[in-house]
Amino acid sequence: MNKKLSEIAIHLGGFVIGDADVVIQAVAGIEEAVEGDLTFVANPKYRPKIMTTGASAILVPPDITEAPKPLLVVDDPYVSLARVLAFLYPEKPPCSGISSEAFVADDATVAEGVTIYPGAYVGSSVRLERGVIIYPGVFVGNGAVIGEDSVLYQNVSVYRRCLIGKRVVLHAGVVVGSDGFGFADPGAANMKVPQIGIVQIDDDCEIGANTTIDRGTLGKTWIKAGVKIDNLVQIAHNVVIGENSVIVAQVGISGSTRIGKSVLLGGQAGLVGHINVGDGAMVAARSGIHKNIPPGTIVSGSPHMPHRQWLRMQATLTRLPDMRKSLLDLAGKIEEIEHTIENMKKR
Amino acid sequence: MNKKLSEIAIHLGGFVIGDADVVIQAVAGIEEAVEGDLTFVANPKYRPKIMTTGASAILVPPDITEAPKPLLVVDDPYVSLARVLAFLYPEKPPCSGISSEAFVADDATVAEGVTIYPGAYVGSSVRLERGVIIYPGVFVGNGAVIGEDSVLYQNVSVYRRCLIGKRVVLHAGVVVGSDGFGFADPGAANMKVPQIGIVQIDDDCEIGANTTIDRGTLGKTWIKAGVKIDNLVQIAHNVVIGENSVIVAQVGISGSTRIGKSVLLGGQAGLVGHINVGDGAMVAARSGIHKNIPPGTIVSGSPHMPHRQWLRMQATLTRLPDMRKSLLDLAGKIEEIEHTIENMKKR
Amino acid sequence: MNKKLSEIAIHLGGFVIGDADVVIQAVAGIEEAVEGDLTFVANPKYRPKIMTTGASAILVPPDITEAPKPLLVVDDPYVSLARVLAFLYPEKPPCSGISSEAFVADDATVAEGVTIYPGAYVGSSVRLERGVIIYPGVFVGNGAVIGEDSVLYQNVSVYRRCLIGKRVVLHAGVVVGSDGFGFADPGAANMKVPQIGIVQIDDDCEIGANTTIDRGTLGKTWIKAGVKIDNLVQIAHNVVIGENSVIVAQVGISGSTRIGKSVLLGGQAGLVGHINVGDGAMVAARSGIHKNIPPGTIVSGSPHMPHRQWLRMQATLTRLPDMRKSLLDLAGKIEEIEHTIENMKKR
Repeated sequence: MNKKLSEIAIHLGGFVIGDADVVIQAVAGIEEAVEGDLTFVANPKYRPKIMTTGASAILVPPDITEAPKPLLVVDDPYVSLARVLAFLYPEKPPCSGISSEAFVADDATVAEGVTIYPGAYVGSSVRLERGVIIYPGVFVGNGAVIGEDSVLYQNVSVYRRCLIGKRVVLHAGVVVGSDGFGFADPGAANMKVPQIGIVQIDDDCEIGANTTIDRGTLGKTWIKAGVKIDNLVQIAHNVVIGENSVIVAQVGISGSTRIGKSVLLGGQAGLVGHINVGDGAMVAARSGIHKNIPPGTIVSGSPHMPHRQWLRMQATLTRLPDMRKSLLDLAGKIEEIEHTIENMKKR
Repeated sequence: MNKKLSEIAIHLGGFVIGDADVVIQAVAGIEEAVEGDLTFVANPKYRPKIMTTGASAILVPPDITEAPKPLLVVDDPYVSLARVLAFLYPEKPPCSGISSEAFVADDATVAEGVTIYPGAYVGSSVRLERGVIIYPGVFVGNGAVIGEDSVLYQNVSVYRRCLIGKRVVLHAGVVVGSDGFGFADPGAANMKVPQIGIVQIDDDCEIGANTTIDRGTLGKTWIKAGVKIDNLVQIAHNVVIGENSVIVAQVGISGSTRIGKSVLLGGQAGLVGHINVGDGAMVAARSGIHKNIPPGTIVSGSPHMPHRQWLRMQATLTRLPDMRKSLLDLAGKIEEIEHTIENMKKR
Repeated sequence: MNKKLSEIAIHLGGFVIGDADVVIQAVAGIEEAVEGDLTFVANPKYRPKIMTTGASAILVPPDITEAPKPLLVVDDPYVSLARVLAFLYPEKPPCSGISSEAFVADDATVAEGVTIYPGAYVGSSVRLERGVIIYPGVFVGNGAVIGEDSVLYQNVSVYRRCLIGKRVVLHAGVVVGSDGFGFADPGAANMKVPQIGIVQIDDDCEIGANTTIDRGTLGKTWIKAGVKIDNLVQIAHNVVIGENSVIVAQVGISGSTRIGKSVLLGGQAGLVGHINVGDGAMVAARSGIHKNIPPGTIVSGSPHMPHRQWLRMQATLTRLPDMRKSLLDLAGKIEEIEHTIENMKKR
């Protein structure tokens, strides 16, 4: 995959400072890179390493113009990293075909160019569209639909009637369409509320390993187009997640909560049910969200508050023991003053 | 499945206000419902939508008596929702039978009316009782027992010798009986303590997708009858959970902790090991539980405290920066007063 | 497996106080033990139960010398428990062999003494070393290597090219090598950064059920020798975990963070990306780690602080409402004093 740095620059729309003829053989992290590697600086933390990296060239933002190695200057090095990796390491699709060791129901509809590995299960009335890849151990329940070019990695579960869009990636162990957690009279009768809804995942979503998405009690749990969800996330029944939102690992979202578009939820955050998170809101990692969040706001803490208020509060929090000491000191002084005044009055 | 509203009222033991002859074809959420649908109001938040829903009839509690649509009045609309869904959408059991593409050990005991899908694995000396359903990719280890009418969804793991009761539902990816996390001299030798116990799950439990329940080091980890556990929950070795308790998603319970009956554990809560949580206790979402909780108490916070105390504390917490400012102001005033008094004395 | 207590004492290098000829048939917890059982006291909490246990003998630390039952005195009862269980309950390895109902690629290299159960999938160019056990539903991707005597329990996923060392145990549902969560321009374009790295797990690691370990974006995510990870843990791309570290359930570690040797991470802790945790550090359960932690330190809280400071802060925190009341009282008193002084001046 050898490419001259100049070729890569043309592909990315960037420009080179230094020797544009250097040959790039691979891409590597700034600490591990050796001769022949292209590396990158996205996180400012790693900037000093520009001086010491073993790489043959460095992908940098426009404000970096000097280094011991040739620089490839681009607007956003992380975006360019994505593009250069796709350019240098094109994915080899598996040869399509349907394994005779997979189970495919007689009435399933399987388009051309579909790959089904051994040990997969494709139920009755399922529709697999063109280019779908079904890895071993995948379960596709009766009546489910998997859209064009979607990839279901090993041991993914899609329960009955769920709808998966185009170019969706479900990583290993993802569960789509398990029953919502609905029990009437909880702690006593625990009467199960049948979960008759579905899950719908729209185009271009990616869902991380072992994440679980429950089906709607009624209607649907809905992951809209372009949403990216990390590993071990819990999405409860009837949650709706707006276009292009990003949800980091181990987040939990309770039933019927609606997340807007382009929302960022930090890792391990938890959201109660039946609330709205506005478009473009940002939720810090480990936040506990107990009520609506207006669009575009940044919140932190558990229970959450505006991020600036949280920063102020945290700054004071560590001084709390000192504050308590001051308070006791002041109370002592006031008592003394009161005593002095009492004596002065007597004079 | 068309039913008159009056038929449904008879089935639920409720009464109708308005046209009891309206025909119900489906059940839907209050915002999505259209003509022909029955909807419901359980969460008070959705009451105003009674005026605008497109539903043909509404399941309501006794204190709602007026609406533009026929009302079906019941004691607890959520309980009635459970019952009406079971009435209108009866589950079709899969046709029983044992797939020739499943692996079933020669000495496994499989009762009549058992369903085993392709790609399942049933080990040596396993006993599957009548009506059990084993989905694809399920693993039942040697010597395990699965009680009558239990359902193991796709890719469930039941390790060797574990005991599952009757009418238990294990959702996709549940792991029962993995080794407890026992290493002597942790951080140094990390010597593995063999985990020779089992997991026992009693009748009528339901366990959510990708939840993990470790086997006992000795003896057993024990989930008692009627317990309902949500997705991605971690239950460590030798934990005991009392009858009918309800555990919300992403909770973690450490080794040898005992949970009483009818306990409610909110989502993402964490409990240390070797403690007792009394019957009927309620633990708020995201709480961190570090010591015993008496029966019937409500706790919040991490580390936890009585819920009322937590509420008071939280109310003050956001005022902390102001308190610090007040404290500095008061200290200034006192200094000034002391100075004034000093001067007065001199006079 | 009947053994005299004296035989067990010799095996463990301990000594007996009382009847050394008593016959031990099994090992049980101190509350469940009956005649014929050996039990143990590791956690001080259970010491009083020495007086009432039904066991025939008790494994104790050196400071316990009196009890109604024979005592087997050892340096560390929990270490000895590990050893006595391995002594009394030796694991029976499954008879090796390769099931004809498994899929094994023609060009996979399978050493002698390997066990592959029905329903497993072993991809192209995979190498399985001697003594490896592959349970049903396991997926081993193209080019992966599994070292000697490693055990992959049911439904484990190892993506392409990942490297697993010797004597590694992966519990059910573990995912190794899923794509890291890398999207450029998050919330907007969400452009996928191809994840071309791998995961390397070194010798003697054990990974708990349904834990997920993402592959490196570039280079590798690296779990070094002797690391023990509990259930439902999230390890992001390019994380490095040092030798013998112990990570409790539901911890999440963000991308490129480096954990030292012999670090202990308590349950449900969360760590941001690109930080270093020094050798021997201890992180309390539920901590939120936002910056580097020096070697050997103990931290708590979210955001974290030194454990002693956290204890002081927590002690004050519950007094916060009282502090606020005191503050208002003092402000009132000062106002009164100021008024008095004003009057005194007028005189």
